[in-house]
Amino acid sequence: MRIVLINPNSTESMTATMMDAASRIVAPGTELLGLTAAYGPESIEGHYDGAFSVPPLLDALRSQGDDIDGVVIGCFDDTGVDPARSMLDVPVIGICQAAMQAATTLAGSFSVITTLGRSVPVLEHLALKYGCERACRRIRACEVPVLELEQTDGPGRARIRAEIEAALHGDRAEAIVLGCAGMVGFAAELTEEYAVPVIEGVTVAVKTVEGLARLGLKTSRRGGYAPPRSKRYRGNFQRYAPDD
Amino acid sequence: MRIVLINPNSTESMTATMMDAASRIVAPGTELLGLTAAYGPESIEGHYDGAFSVPPLLDALRSQGDDIDGVVIGCFDDTGVDPARSMLDVPVIGICQAAMQAATTLAGSFSVITTLGRSVPVLEHLALKYGCERACRRIRACEVPVLELEQTDGPGRARIRAEIEAALHGDRAEAIVLGCAGMVGFAAELTEEYAVPVIEGVTVAVKTVEGLARLGLKTSRRGGYAPPRSKRYRGNFQRYAPDD
Amino acid sequence: MRIVLINPNSTESMTATMMDAASRIVAPGTELLGLTAAYGPESIEGHYDGAFSVPPLLDALRSQGDDIDGVVIGCFDDTGVDPARSMLDVPVIGICQAAMQAATTLAGSFSVITTLGRSVPVLEHLALKYGCERACRRIRACEVPVLELEQTDGPGRARIRAEIEAALHGDRAEAIVLGCAGMVGFAAELTEEYAVPVIEGVTVAVKTVEGLARLGLKTSRRGGYAPPRSKRYRGNFQRYAPDD
Amino acid sequence: MRIVLINPNSTESMTATMMDAASRIVAPGTELLGLTAAYGPESIEGHYDGAFSVPPLLDALRSQGDDIDGVVIGCFDDTGVDPARSMLDVPVIGICQAAMQAATTLAGSFSVITTLGRSVPVLEHLALKYGCERACRRIRACEVPVLELEQTDGPGRARIRAEIEAALHGDRAEAIVLGCAGMVGFAAELTEEYAVPVIEGVTVAVKTVEGLARLGLKTSRRGGYAPPRSKRYRGNFQRYAPDD
Amino acid sequence: MRIVLINPNSTESMTATMMDAASRIVAPGTELLGLTAAYGPESIEGHYDGAFSVPPLLDALRSQGDDIDGVVIGCFDDTGVDPARSMLDVPVIGICQAAMQAATTLAGSFSVITTLGRSVPVLEHLALKYGCERACRRIRACEVPVLELEQTDGPGRARIRAEIEAALHGDRAEAIVLGCAGMVGFAAELTEEYAVPVIEGVTVAVKTVEGLARLGLKTSRRGGYAPPRSKRYRGNFQRYAPDD
Amino acid sequence: MRIVLINPNSTESMTATMMDAASRIVAPGTELLGLTAAYGPESIEGHYDGAFSVPPLLDALRSQGDDIDGVVIGCFDDTGVDPARSMLDVPVIGICQAAMQAATTLAGSFSVITTLGRSVPVLEHLALKYGCERACRRIRACEVPVLELEQTDGPGRARIRAEIEAALHGDRAEAIVLGCAGMVGFAAELTEEYAVPVIEGVTVAVKTVEGLARLGLKTSRRGGYAPPRSKRYRGNFQRYAPDD
Repeated sequence: MRIVLINPNSTESMTATMMDAASRIVAPGTELLGLTAAYGPESIEGHYDGAFSVPPLLDALRSQGDDIDGVVIGCFDDTGVDPARSMLDVPVIGICQAAMQAATTLAGSFSVITTLGRSVPVLEHLALKYGCERACRRIRACEVPVLELEQTDGPGRARIRAEIEAALHGDRAEAIVLGCAGMVGFAAELTEEYAVPVIEGVTVAVKTVEGLARLGLKTSRRGGYAPPRSKRYRGNFQRYAPDD
Repeated sequence: MRIVLINPNSTESMTATMMDAASRIVAPGTELLGLTAAYGPESIEGHYDGAFSVPPLLDALRSQGDDIDGVVIGCFDDTGVDPARSMLDVPVIGICQAAMQAATTLAGSFSVITTLGRSVPVLEHLALKYGCERACRRIRACEVPVLELEQTDGPGRARIRAEIEAALHGDRAEAIVLGCAGMVGFAAELTEEYAVPVIEGVTVAVKTVEGLARLGLKTSRRGGYAPPRSKRYRGNFQRYAPDD
Repeated sequence: MRIVLINPNSTESMTATMMDAASRIVAPGTELLGLTAAYGPESIEGHYDGAFSVPPLLDALRSQGDDIDGVVIGCFDDTGVDPARSMLDVPVIGICQAAMQAATTLAGSFSVITTLGRSVPVLEHLALKYGCERACRRIRACEVPVLELEQTDGPGRARIRAEIEAALHGDRAEAIVLGCAGMVGFAAELTEEYAVPVIEGVTVAVKTVEGLARLGLKTSRRGGYAPPRSKRYRGNFQRYAPDD
Repeated sequence: MRIVLINPNSTESMTATMMDAASRIVAPGTELLGLTAAYGPESIEGHYDGAFSVPPLLDALRSQGDDIDGVVIGCFDDTGVDPARSMLDVPVIGICQAAMQAATTLAGSFSVITTLGRSVPVLEHLALKYGCERACRRIRACEVPVLELEQTDGPGRARIRAEIEAALHGDRAEAIVLGCAGMVGFAAELTEEYAVPVIEGVTVAVKTVEGLARLGLKTSRRGGYAPPRSKRYRGNFQRYAPDD
Repeated sequence: MRIVLINPNSTESMTATMMDAASRIVAPGTELLGLTAAYGPESIEGHYDGAFSVPPLLDALRSQGDDIDGVVIGCFDDTGVDPARSMLDVPVIGICQAAMQAATTLAGSFSVITTLGRSVPVLEHLALKYGCERACRRIRACEVPVLELEQTDGPGRARIRAEIEAALHGDRAEAIVLGCAGMVGFAAELTEEYAVPVIEGVTVAVKTVEGLARLGLKTSRRGGYAPPRSKRYRGNFQRYAPDD
Repeated sequence: MRIVLINPNSTESMTATMMDAASRIVAPGTELLGLTAAYGPESIEGHYDGAFSVPPLLDALRSQGDDIDGVVIGCFDDTGVDPARSMLDVPVIGICQAAMQAATTLAGSFSVITTLGRSVPVLEHLALKYGCERACRRIRACEVPVLELEQTDGPGRARIRAEIEAALHGDRAEAIVLGCAGMVGFAAELTEEYAVPVIEGVTVAVKTVEGLARLGLKTSRRGGYAPPRSKRYRGNFQRYAPDD
């Protein structure tokens, strides 16, 4: 079985960090392929960056042809999940949806700790889309930019801890969701420290897609995820036109 | 005052049709500028097309510099509205939001008649986003592709009529919203025929943005619509990088 | 085009304040007619006052006959909007609905600053009715009575400022809605001061109705806004009986 | 204990019908006082009639002074419930709220059978206000006007039966609520005929208010039901001004 | 008329406390029968205790045969209400549903003061089930265990008072609901002290069931409350098998 | 890793059917232990049966001590999931939650086909609890009792097919969820036949719990799933008392 873990931003070190965590937890026989957007934003912080991350994401996925069994999109905004589901028929999940599903399985409520305030409305919207508007108590921003999460000596972890404490006491959250792919390495330590599930979505998403693929389940071809209709794409986007 | 009406697909005849309707209803002193995506899909039918329409849309808007007072996005999927609001500080509205706002002002409930079934979940999602999940009784597809709406001798209008009748009697809708920019020219005739408000979003959106701009109101710069952070966009998407 | 701006309370100075703001922003060719309830409460603060403001409101509107193209109801409780829509077939909007529609077009979330605590549940209910129960973060009362807002040397503006600051920081609101017609003159100054959209509904409502009227759109006659059935009204309310 | 059952329309025969049913079910020691609006609409069918029924309703209640222990408002639109709660401190309930509370206690879901289609949105709105938007499967109109319900030889009961059957089979409702005070006499027979709870609100509301009053519970004076502030009511509505 | 007030925990002193309050408020002619679970948990604090309280509850109710006219379940978790409704055809209500219905009749919003934090999600879930997710501002735990409420010299009342004050000022609740059967004796005193309705569910539930029974209303036999199908129950639970 | 798949009804052949499907899809190294309730109802059809299935379920789980890594509850009513989560700290999921999570990952909407009409409200309630009240279009009953599903020559499959067809065309569902553990063997064939995801929860739940356990994630011990407090359980339920 071949699962793609794709980073829709173009920073390869983030992909490597995700692959480091995810490659440890796949089942025997699962090949995990890490992909990075070949072009586009170096990080996704808000609607504008998100918009320009979808074409390279879909481009990279399409280049894999039919030789994949499932896709994990490694950005907590679940960037491009819907068009990827339309394009492919294998299971596709974003790390936000995966993490929120795990959180509602392990706890009655949760809060999310994300990076910047501008991402909060994006994630509030995803919580609503995924039916978690009641279970998700609050989306909290630690105000550390995505790429600074990689600096182990930066203020990132201290600010994340401050928000976790506010979530546990102020929001009465029963679990914590880490709201950025760049936090993939922090979950285990924080789970132990706070004695509460601290969930990051990359590994959860990989296990989710691996499980669905093992069961032979596929994305529906009816309704919203019907394959793109054949049509003309003009100009330099011609190469993105749906296959006939 | 200068309002941009932008068609995020690359079919100029659709822009012309929209401009034909909209240019009749602007106030004296309002200049209406019609723009068409310079590249990308010829029509937007579902998630995949939508994803590739956003870069050319934002590209076209950015080329206008600061010389605009408001933007109408002329696709009923409200393609790219959120990143456009982040990029600009003038009012930006999509024709779906404008039409749904008008419908809830003129009636207690409405149904939407759109083109293809694959767009129905996209619009159900917008109804939820806009708080119209109760007022919107049903999204109905007439199963006529977007570009075939231009064929005046095609089956399009008959199928739209059949869905309107089902909406009035089956859904007990008090108003009808036409769910495609290509239906802009049908509203007046259908309003008269069915003695019920039949609302299309292009003209409503133009009047909405014109009104907000006249009042000097601007898009919030806090939270989700904060301007994009300066950062590197790699490869051939480098030119889309946010301005410093 | 003739738009009526009606104040459902009987204090003419409030009508004058609203007219002062609104008359500046109508399009060329729009005549704006200010009406004041000829009898009834001098201000509307809670359910009881509201109930007694509807008959004089409808009475004043009916006296205009068919010679109007749209109606703005100038009270943030949207007093009498539903019966007015039943009675007339032109567009009718209250300033709360207009302001909330503008807020959700310009920002992802907003808080409302109203006058007294007793109005908060009234407005929470309107937020729900208009599908803004998620976008509206909180209704805040500055505890300044309606008629005291006219006193420019009173504590009104300081208290409004305190609530705006609480809304921006405590509620994380992306925009502010001023929740009383008497605040119509404060919006521009506060918008500049806080660098965030501060929206008051009177001018927005006038532009909304002007726009709908310009498009020839009318209130639905089906369902809840069907015209009143002809029937007997007994006693001294006989004169309010629906026209045959 | 003295409970007022007030009919907000001015048709005394409807009050008598309600009193006939309700007087049979009060507890020993409960005095039930039937009141009828002294002026205003002869029946309440839609928003316009409703607006003109509230002043006579509040007028009649106020004339009772402090000598009452609870109020039932005998119109399924729950006309004037909110201002009556502000004016009085005894428990006040409308027959819609009472019936919906009973329905959700006796069954997992219900449909409502009301008179005319124009009342359906009014009642859908009440279902939302009362938190019954999920339990209430559908509001159905039998298209019999209110006052024709009194004609025992008219088509009323046959049309009600047709809607009940549609509700049980089409809506999969587990209970039926009769959505007009004029149907008060039909419930027992229909309950037996369909072997399902058929609930009318008049008697339920009387028992609810009687129970709350027996427990000494009163309407909250905080927030939305705070007593009206003392102020001037101009003109011929001066007599409705709140008591000092 | 014979109403059963059943305590699903096995602590008879709690039943006595409830009976002491409830027996004072029944109508002449109503016999109130207090039952206590003959076996099982001594108090219900969270999901686990709740699960083991249902068999003894249903067992005790079944032993009453057909000789009862209504049932009140005296635990604020509304333990076993749904299976009891399936088993019986008389009205059955839990004290949480009864108290929340009263609170939404007497006030626009309320907060609940319960015992331990582990019960908060249970009650949040009931608020949702009963359609009170908007009216219920917050469920607050005073962190006093159920059985310690009986100690009149303990810290219980002081902690309850602290939470009431937080609810009135922090949550802007218009009424208070006491969220444990063991608080039945506190309501009157707190109502007077805080000049706001403080509602406990035992007495409200008794009046509610007494009222429904007086009207001859019964639990629906359609859908979710259909009587249990005859079938085999194996082992030592054989005696709980549904009657043929 | 040791995963328990427990059937909360006492019919061992149903456990065997579930184990037959589930044992094929576990990862190498996962031991799957099938348990059956040692006593209680032979099938779970409605609230009453459900109530008596929880004690034997918890009893069987507790007998496994600490030697398990996750639990799947093999009844589509998700019987006893909440108390099991309180009792254990390993991941616990019911097959309804697992199936609905998969459905919302693979499709935008789904309908459920369950056995009897009396289970429909139970499942509607779970859809709400899991935040799927929008994605779940309808719960449909095929009116085949649970134990009759085992009869391969019975009418079961034909009735399920009829409901699937109604769901695809009438509900416009994009996926189908099979709403009974006894349907575990039908999914693959129906998926192929209807070219749409037909999801059964047993295998999905096993993969979900296996994945969560592989990641070391545990049920939260805060709030609603806090371990039961030590206390007395009286009489013959004494043996169920929480461990000290």
